[in-house]
Amino acid sequence: MFGCLVAGRLVQAAPQQVAEDKFVFDIPDYENINHVVVFMLGTIPFPEGMGGSVYFCYPDQSGMAVWQLLGFVTNEKPSAIFKISGLKSGKGSQHPFGAMNLPQTPTVAQIGISVELLENLAQQTPVASAAVSSVDSFTEFTQKMLDNFYNFASSFAVTQAQMTPNPSEAFIPANVVLKW
Amino acid sequence: MFGCLVAGRLVQAAPQQVAEDKFVFDIPDYENINHVVVFMLGTIPFPEGMGGSVYFCYPDQSGMAVWQLLGFVTNEKPSAIFKISGLKSGKGSQHPFGAMNLPQTPTVAQIGISVELLENLAQQTPVASAAVSSVDSFTEFTQKMLDNFYNFASSFAVTQAQMTPNPSEAFIPANVVLKW
Repeated sequence: MFGCLVAGRLVQAAPQQVAEDKFVFDIPDYENINHVVVFMLGTIPFPEGMGGSVYFCYPDQSGMAVWQLLGFVTNEKPSAIFKISGLKSGKGSQHPFGAMNLPQTPTVAQIGISVELLENLAQQTPVASAAVSSVDSFTEFTQKMLDNFYNFASSFAVTQAQMTPNPSEAFIPANVVLKW
Repeated sequence: MFGCLVAGRLVQAAPQQVAEDKFVFDIPDYENINHVVVFMLGTIPFPEGMGGSVYFCYPDQSGMAVWQLLGFVTNEKPSAIFKISGLKSGKGSQHPFGAMNLPQTPTVAQIGISVELLENLAQQTPVASAAVSSVDSFTEFTQKMLDNFYNFASSFAVTQAQMTPNPSEAFIPANVVLKW
């Protein structure tokens, strides 16, 4: 029903079915990957009114499984690209794989797909950094970078009263940086 | 031998074989897509010393086919994600599909894969904007954004001699912006 592709590697089309509605792909050497593609093979659609939530699961420093919701696949949107790099320091999210005892090897992560009602999926919020080609998350990223810049630049800010006399040095009003 | 996946759509695993060493996938409604994944199915490897160059082909305003080199797949790197959005205003590159008369429909593009000697692939340069998860191109992007910012902010720059007296307004030395 599902395929999984780590960019640069061979496609996987045979997940482990760990429950009637749960599928898991092993992702070896996950620390050296950037993007993962999850897609329906096109053979079996989801049952009416159902879709799949896609999770990334990796072992934290103590070997415990951390699950993060990447996004969804549905009959209407049967494939998605997720950015995995950058997730590793994030916090885990609620997930439906709780009872499953997946083996945790330090270098092996998992992609888990849980088949659920579409109305349940609509109430779940994926981690923002996993979105690829989402304008929202990209805007958010650049905003963060600019916030960092403003914090950095304003640590050098001076008022006129504090300035060492040097008429040739150029200054930028701090509110110009903020407005940009 | 090859699969092709437009992010958000169903996977395609049956390209049209237009020559012994050339394969083509149709990409309908190509103006509304961002990313394309090209991968080997894992059934048949490339012959020893061979790999595939991956091209995007779309009709220009006069209906002529424009071909752009996206990148490569090889036995060692059997899949790749390419960014398609943003290519449409680019120039065409040299390509090996010249003699083929692919039907050009205004809304249908193609992904073409040409099986070639690895030493030939090494001499070809893909369009930079097609790379996904390339640190280089991302760094380049942020650098451009910061250059734009510096140009914007420095248009407001003043020297102390030009300042209206207002001891409480904060100013950032312009060289701080440059150093960052």
